[in-house]
Amino acid sequence: MTRKKRATNIKKMKTKKRATNIKRMKAIRLFMDWEPREGFKLGPRDIERRRAQEGNKVWRNPRVKIVTDPLPKIKPYEVLIKVRACGICGSDVLMAKKDLEGYTSYGYIMANGVIIGHEFAGDIVEMGKKVKNLQKRLKRKKKFNIGTPVTAQCVIPCGSCQMCKDKKPDLCFLNEERGFSKDGAMAEYVVADIKEVYSIESYRKRYGKDMYLVGALTEPLAGVYKAIVEVGGGLRPGENGVVIGGGPIGFSAIGVLKALGAGKVILSEPLKHRREKGRLMGADYLIDPLKENLKEKILEYTKGKGARIYFEAAGVAPKVYSDIEKLFQIGRPESKLILFGHGPGKIEINPEVFIGNYNVITGSHGHCGVWDDVIRMVSQGIIDPRKMITHKISLDQVPDYLKKLQKPTTEGKVVITKFK
Amino acid sequence: MTRKKRATNIKKMKTKKRATNIKRMKAIRLFMDWEPREGFKLGPRDIERRRAQEGNKVWRNPRVKIVTDPLPKIKPYEVLIKVRACGICGSDVLMAKKDLEGYTSYGYIMANGVIIGHEFAGDIVEMGKKVKNLQKRLKRKKKFNIGTPVTAQCVIPCGSCQMCKDKKPDLCFLNEERGFSKDGAMAEYVVADIKEVYSIESYRKRYGKDMYLVGALTEPLAGVYKAIVEVGGGLRPGENGVVIGGGPIGFSAIGVLKALGAGKVILSEPLKHRREKGRLMGADYLIDPLKENLKEKILEYTKGKGARIYFEAAGVAPKVYSDIEKLFQIGRPESKLILFGHGPGKIEINPEVFIGNYNVITGSHGHCGVWDDVIRMVSQGIIDPRKMITHKISLDQVPDYLKKLQKPTTEGKVVITKFK
Repeated sequence: MTRKKRATNIKKMKTKKRATNIKRMKAIRLFMDWEPREGFKLGPRDIERRRAQEGNKVWRNPRVKIVTDPLPKIKPYEVLIKVRACGICGSDVLMAKKDLEGYTSYGYIMANGVIIGHEFAGDIVEMGKKVKNLQKRLKRKKKFNIGTPVTAQCVIPCGSCQMCKDKKPDLCFLNEERGFSKDGAMAEYVVADIKEVYSIESYRKRYGKDMYLVGALTEPLAGVYKAIVEVGGGLRPGENGVVIGGGPIGFSAIGVLKALGAGKVILSEPLKHRREKGRLMGADYLIDPLKENLKEKILEYTKGKGARIYFEAAGVAPKVYSDIEKLFQIGRPESKLILFGHGPGKIEINPEVFIGNYNVITGSHGHCGVWDDVIRMVSQGIIDPRKMITHKISLDQVPDYLKKLQKPTTEGKVVITKFK
Repeated sequence: MTRKKRATNIKKMKTKKRATNIKRMKAIRLFMDWEPREGFKLGPRDIERRRAQEGNKVWRNPRVKIVTDPLPKIKPYEVLIKVRACGICGSDVLMAKKDLEGYTSYGYIMANGVIIGHEFAGDIVEMGKKVKNLQKRLKRKKKFNIGTPVTAQCVIPCGSCQMCKDKKPDLCFLNEERGFSKDGAMAEYVVADIKEVYSIESYRKRYGKDMYLVGALTEPLAGVYKAIVEVGGGLRPGENGVVIGGGPIGFSAIGVLKALGAGKVILSEPLKHRREKGRLMGADYLIDPLKENLKEKILEYTKGKGARIYFEAAGVAPKVYSDIEKLFQIGRPESKLILFGHGPGKIEINPEVFIGNYNVITGSHGHCGVWDDVIRMVSQGIIDPRKMITHKISLDQVPDYLKKLQKPTTEGKVVITKFK
């Protein structure tokens, strides 16, 4: 590139930089009060930075506010993304939900006053200097440009701690999370380091304008994909899968199990509308656990074989585990329970069952390292996450929906698509 | 081979066949009464063949007897082995032990009146016709001859069921077990199908006369190796391991963990003599769980890192699990609890711990498929299982020892070495 050309480009970029002439943007912020519970011992990071590793032990009186803020500035390795779609996740709802003592209901990393929202897609509208340099140094087709449609992981690993070096960024000792401890995407614009950004250009051909909806739902899919494929070891084509809970995570699990070639996928979910949504996502059989016997029905639908993978998406493991343990004994040996949904209570397991049948219980929560796999899969239409969307709302409706979704509801995935 | 030569060989074999002129042999048989517990539903195999899949639900009043029997005959694919050493396993003790209601204390496959004993080594003294043919057809150096020192797995898979075809012989739907449902090795001679027999010729150079002792201890090592390496996925050199229970299984686990390159191996065991034995097997640190705090000590010895693998060898998971779950949270993520020792009670697990730390609970009981690995390892002296032996006894002493070992004891491994 000649010096002249570059100068033009930089000029263009600079022009582009605040091309929208927008200086301020609308966003949803969550404010809370710092009141550590009696007897709870704050960790060093809690004290130092006033961001709690276990939100519900510290943050009280969560308040959702629509604010108008200055457009955020970006650092050299960051990009500014104009948000086109942002999903509401169960964790967003939990963060905004007070428990009986007025504390937030979300038990993980949380800082006060951040913009929430972490399942999003949008277009790059501004690029840090070094992002361009970086791409030049990589000497390949530029992946990121002004206008590139992207999504981003919410996990922001430090990159330097023992866990990060050991390729376990989800377990980073100093992690931040976009939408939890750093500003997220329930806003007109969001900032992300290029390390965390993935192009969804490959969605354009199949999904057209819906590419942003699909892009926003890539995050929950990535979490589920990691849990089932990486942590859980997947299943062999034709083996069966059971999904507990028909919310967006459960729907994603149905999609991933089907993508892996599962023979029969069975969804257990008490709400009828959600069960039906599960069928749309590919579930072969539906169980109403309040009216039907989970164990008996699973045995019936799998012809006595049970499932290879039991995926718990609802945080109700204590309610369903005794049935699953019976299935561990009757059905296929080596079957696995993958814990994913957050919820209270413990489960009581019989060691002899595990010794006798080689069963496995494990759990998962992160999503690092699988994004390219998931985007490739989705871009080919192997999973179409649009099917799980039930509501498209505006930013202004978010406070209402964060309340509405606190109660058992018929809503599938709610996605913000209007940001003005 | 000319016809003449073959004839000579057959003659030789026939001469050899009962060369010892022994027509009868001494053996230890376990007799019991068929009294299914009230309310227990017998399975089809239980009824058909009077061999219980869950011994303690059916068999009452176990009685150990020294008998003198005719020398067993072999089928074409079998060999007759003169037993040189046979270990007493925890399961032998449990089989002979009455519970409060007079039932056997062993909860797995058991038939009435069989010769017990399944950890053994000896010399081939007679070979079925087809064994020789088989080796000829394999066109390689003969592995088995009259006089070859061997050991054998106790799991006798049917070879035809779904599990066997699926390379899961330990989970065979129609399995038999030598020493449990078929005649075992607490006898002067034992029979085994060549499929289940492994040469321990490679032990001769390193162990000399002790090769049979080492051969007898290959079985428990194989079970532990499978649990830690195959089912548990092993560990990376330098990672730590914790072993709960200082009996022969725990000692084997210490050996396997060290063989894998474990940094620190910690043994928790209440009996002092057994702890000391653990050190001999390679344990770096010893914990007396009755006097010391398991969690605190493990954190101290691992410098706050905890272990990658927690191996439960004592059947006391309900007693130690709460400490292990705390270590799951403080220490290394992705750490695993491998359940191996049989015992009563359940454990209560917190799903959030598994979701947050990618922990795994699994279990294992079989030993198929790892024998060549284990024999190769032991023949090179990487583990020397002789260290765990405390007593060498005669067949006549077995009934006494089966009683003695029912109580907490200082005995390490007890091995029968005299059979007359």
